[in-house]
Amino acid sequence: MDGGVIGVFDSGVGGLTVLKAIRDLLPKENLVYFGDTARVPYGTKSPKTIVKYSLENARLLSSFNLKLLVVACNTSSAHALEALRRELPVPVVGVVEPGAKLAVSSSKNGKVGVIGTEATVKSDAYKRAILSINPSYQVFQRACPLLVPLIEEGWLNDPITAQVVKRYLSPFKELSIDTLVLGCTHYPLLKGLIKELFPEFNLIDSAKAVALTVKELLSSSSDGGGSVKVLVSDKTERFERIAKMIMGRDITVEEVSFDKE
Amino acid sequence: MDGGVIGVFDSGVGGLTVLKAIRDLLPKENLVYFGDTARVPYGTKSPKTIVKYSLENARLLSSFNLKLLVVACNTSSAHALEALRRELPVPVVGVVEPGAKLAVSSSKNGKVGVIGTEATVKSDAYKRAILSINPSYQVFQRACPLLVPLIEEGWLNDPITAQVVKRYLSPFKELSIDTLVLGCTHYPLLKGLIKELFPEFNLIDSAKAVALTVKELLSSSSDGGGSVKVLVSDKTERFERIAKMIMGRDITVEEVSFDKE
Repeated sequence: MDGGVIGVFDSGVGGLTVLKAIRDLLPKENLVYFGDTARVPYGTKSPKTIVKYSLENARLLSSFNLKLLVVACNTSSAHALEALRRELPVPVVGVVEPGAKLAVSSSKNGKVGVIGTEATVKSDAYKRAILSINPSYQVFQRACPLLVPLIEEGWLNDPITAQVVKRYLSPFKELSIDTLVLGCTHYPLLKGLIKELFPEFNLIDSAKAVALTVKELLSSSSDGGGSVKVLVSDKTERFERIAKMIMGRDITVEEVSFDKE
Repeated sequence: MDGGVIGVFDSGVGGLTVLKAIRDLLPKENLVYFGDTARVPYGTKSPKTIVKYSLENARLLSSFNLKLLVVACNTSSAHALEALRRELPVPVVGVVEPGAKLAVSSSKNGKVGVIGTEATVKSDAYKRAILSINPSYQVFQRACPLLVPLIEEGWLNDPITAQVVKRYLSPFKELSIDTLVLGCTHYPLLKGLIKELFPEFNLIDSAKAVALTVKELLSSSSDGGGSVKVLVSDKTERFERIAKMIMGRDITVEEVSFDKE
C-alpha cells in the first residue's frame, strides 16, 4: 500500500482553493477534503472553540491513511496548529507560515498588509510569522468580514464589491505597502478585482504558497490515482454551488458525522 | 415561587432584538437568553442540523424554571418548531407565525414581500404561514445573505448598505408589494434605512410581533424582578459589541457549555 493520502480541512468551502492548488501542482496525489460546514464559520469563534473543532476534524481525517495534513483554514492555522502537531504523527501544514514566507520574499520595501477574518487578524498570526522571519518588517492588518459573504453571493466582478474592497484596502495604500497577503482561503476569488483596483500591490495567494510547501515536504512523488474525495459535516446546496465556482466543475460531496467515529 | 422565566434562544446575537421587544412590553418578566454563538449561523445549515441544535438549546434553557420558550431565530422557527413543541411542556412561540399574522392584517393589496436568510426563505415558512391565514395572498421572497454581515460591521446608515438594500429590494417594488416582512432578527436595525429607501413598504418587525404574542399568551402579569440573563455558547467581543448596539447599553454575558448538562 503506497504512501497514503493528503488530508485537507477547512471550516467550510473556502479551503477548496487550497485543495485545487495542491491538485494543480501534484495531480497524482490522492486527496481527502473535509469541510466542517455544520459549524462554519470559525472566524467569529473563540480560540478555545477553534482548537476543539480543529482537533475533531483532524481525528475524522485520521480514519484515512494520512501522510500529511493541510489546515486550509486561516482561523484554525492561526490558533490550532500547535495542538494539531502535538496530536498527529504526520506533518501538519498551515496556511499562515507558507503565506508569510512568500510575503517576506516578495516585498521590496518591507511593508506588508494582511487581510482576513476577525479572528485571524486578532490572532496576529501572520504578523508574528512575518516578523519572526524578518523583524524589521512593518505589518498592517485589517479584518474584512464582508468579503466572504460577497464572494458567496457570486458578486465577484461587481460595483458593490469594488466599493467594499476600496473601503477596506485604501488605508493600505496610504501606508504604502507593496505586498498584500490574502489571509482567507475565499479571497483568491477576488484576486482579479483587487489587482484591478490596486495594481500596485503584490498579492500573496496563500493557497498557492501552501501547495508549494506540500510539494517540498513530500520526499518522493506519489503515483497514486489522483483521487479527490470531498466530505462535509453538513451537506447543503450552498456548498455544492460555491464548490463548483472554486473547482470550475461539479464535484461529488459526501456528508459524514462526528458521532460515528 | 412565582411563575418562572421566559426563555429566548437564537443562533447568535440577533435574537436580542426580540429580547428587547419583550423587555420593553413586559418589563417585570424575568428573562433568560441563550445565543448559540459557538454554532452560529444556522441560516446556511441543513434542516436536520437546525432541528438538532434547536432541541439542544431548549434543553439548556429548561434547566431554568421556564414558563414559556421564544424561538427568536427565524431559521429555527422555520424548521424546528414542531419538534420543540413535541418535547417541551410549556408554550413555544416562534417568530414566523406572529410576523405572518401581522403582515396579513397590515397588507391592503394582498401582496407581501419576505426577506431573510437563505434557509428561512428556502423553508417557505413565512409564505406558508401567510397563505394558511389567507390563501388569496401573493407572497414574494428573497434571501439577503449580505444584510447580517453589513449590520454586524455597524454600517447601518451607509451608502454601500443602501446600494445592497436597493439591489435586494427593488424587485419587490416592481411586484407592487405594500408590506415587507423583515424575516431575520437582525433586520430591525436596518428599519430606518429601508423606510427611507422604500417608504411605500409597510415594514413588519417580527420582534415586536413576537412580544405582542407573548403578552397574549401569559394569563397573568408577572411581578418578577424583571431580571435579564444573557448566556452564550461562545463568548466573544463581537457578541458583546453587537449586543450593546441592539440593547443600547453594555450587558453582562455569561458563557455556558452543553457538556455540563
